Amino acid sequence: MVVVGELINTSRKVIREAVEKRDTDYIQQIAKAQGEAGAHYLDINCGTMVGEEAAIMEWLVNTVQEVSNLPLCIDSPSTAALVAGLELAKAPNPMINSITAEEKRFQNVLPLIKKYKAKIVALCIEDAGMPETAKDRLRIAQYLVTKLETEGISQGDIYLDPLIKPISAGDTYGREVLESIRLIKEVFPEVHFMCGLSNVSYSLPNRALVNRLFMVQTMAMGMDGYILDPTNKDMMGALYIATALTGQDKYCRGYLKAHRKGLYS
Amino acid sequence: MVVVGELINTSRKVIREAVEKRDTDYIQQIAKAQGEAGAHYLDINCGTMVGEEAAIMEWLVNTVQEVSNLPLCIDSPSTAALVAGLELAKAPNPMINSITAEEKRFQNVLPLIKKYKAKIVALCIEDAGMPETAKDRLRIAQYLVTKLETEGISQGDIYLDPLIKPISAGDTYGREVLESIRLIKEVFPEVHFMCGLSNVSYSLPNRALVNRLFMVQTMAMGMDGYILDPTNKDMMGALYIATALTGQDKYCRGYLKAHRKGLYS
Repeated sequence: MVVVGELINTSRKVIREAVEKRDTDYIQQIAKAQGEAGAHYLDINCGTMVGEEAAIMEWLVNTVQEVSNLPLCIDSPSTAALVAGLELAKAPNPMINSITAEEKRFQNVLPLIKKYKAKIVALCIEDAGMPETAKDRLRIAQYLVTKLETEGISQGDIYLDPLIKPISAGDTYGREVLESIRLIKEVFPEVHFMCGLSNVSYSLPNRALVNRLFMVQTMAMGMDGYILDPTNKDMMGALYIATALTGQDKYCRGYLKAHRKGLYS
Repeated sequence: MVVVGELINTSRKVIREAVEKRDTDYIQQIAKAQGEAGAHYLDINCGTMVGEEAAIMEWLVNTVQEVSNLPLCIDSPSTAALVAGLELAKAPNPMINSITAEEKRFQNVLPLIKKYKAKIVALCIEDAGMPETAKDRLRIAQYLVTKLETEGISQGDIYLDPLIKPISAGDTYGREVLESIRLIKEVFPEVHFMCGLSNVSYSLPNRALVNRLFMVQTMAMGMDGYILDPTNKDMMGALYIATALTGQDKYCRGYLKAHRKGLYS
C-alpha cells in the first residue's frame, strides 16, 4: 500500500497563504506531520500559482527536503514545473503526477520519467476526453501501459489512476471505477493503482465518510495507492483495517500496531 | 440489497431474558424497531434454547407477527424448530437459514424449501469441514447450487453464505471471502449472497468498524444481502453509501433520503 500525502497543495487555502508568505515553518510542519502519520511520498502541487509555478515548486521542494527524506510526488500540469521539482528532488525514484494518453501530454512527460527514473501516475484521460465506463478505462490503460512499456518503463513503476467522477453526476460512476480496476488487473497484473478520493463524493452530504468507504471498496478490487491526508485519523484507520481485510497485513500486525499507537480513530 | 434484521436471537442476553419471561412487549418493540430502521426480513433464532426450541420458535413467530408483516428468516440448526417456525410464518416466501452441503443437513432442509416455497441461505460448509480458500468456497457453492437447481430451486432464491472466518485467525481469510464472491458470481450470475459480519473481527480491537468496512468491501465484490442490526446507524449509513458507490442507488436517492431522515450517523 502506497500513501501519498496530499496536503502540500496550493489549492488549499492554508498552503496558498503559507506559500505567499514563504512561511517555511508551516510548510515544514505539514511535511513532517504527514511523514509521522505514515505517508510514503509527499505530493508537491502548486498548480494554482499561475505564472510563478516553477519558482514556487523549487521553493517548496527545497523547504520540504530540509525536514523530510521521503520521496516526493511532483504534481503539475506544467512540464516546466515538473522539471523544476524533479531537478531538485533528492530521494531516488520520485513520482510524477501525471502522464495521460493525450498525445501532447504523453510526449512532454515521457522524457522526464526516463531522465529522473521516476515512478509515474498515469491518468486515464485521452484526447477524446474523460472515460465513462470501465471498458473506456481499460482501453485507455491498455494504450498507456503498452506505450510506456515500449519505451522501457516497467509495469511496476506505473500507477494507473482510473479517474474518479462524482456519483452525484452519474450513479454508475463508482461501479465503473471498481470494475475497471478488476479488468485492468487481469490484463496487467504487475501494474499499480493510485487515486485521489474526494471527487467521488462531490455535492453529497457526509463527504468524508463517502470518500473513506470508496477507498475501502477500491482496495477490495486491487487499488494499492492513494493520494490522501495521512493526518486524517478516520481515513488512516479505514486504510489499516481495509489492508488487513484484504490479506495484506501479516498477522494483522500493522493494524494492531496502529491501534496501540493511537494512529487512528 | 436485502437486510435481514438479526436482533431476535436468544444468543443475545436481552432476548434470552425476554423470552424466558415471555416479554411480548420487548420482543415486539425490537421487531418494530428493525422494520422501521429498514429491515426486509426479520431473523428468528432461538437455537440456544435447547430442549424447548420448537415451542419458543412458535411463540416468537406469533409474537413478532402480531406487530410486523415483514417476511421472516427462520434460523435454526434444528429441523423441528425450522418446521415450527415455517408452519406459522404468514408472509409468503419466508427465508430458511440455512442449508449446507453436509449430506444429512441437505436432505433434512431440502423438503422444507419446497414445501414452504422458501428462499434459502446456503452456507458453504461440507461434511469435510469448513472452507479455507476462495476455491474451496467455489467448489462447495457449485455443489450446493447445482444440487438445488436439480431439485427445482432457482438461483434467484438461493443466498450463498461464503462462511466468514476471523482475520485474526488467518490473515488471508478476508481476502479469500472477497475473492470467492467474484468466482461464484462468474459461474452463477443470478445467485444472491448473504452473510453475517461479526465473525470477521473476532478478537480484534474496534470490531464494529472492522465489521462495517468488511460489509462495504463484500458489497463491492457483489454481496447483496446481510444479516445485521438495522438499528445500528453507523452500519446502515455505511450500507446506504456502499449501495450508492456500487451503482445500485438511482440518482443516489436512497442515500439522500436516508440522510434527510437522519437514518444514519
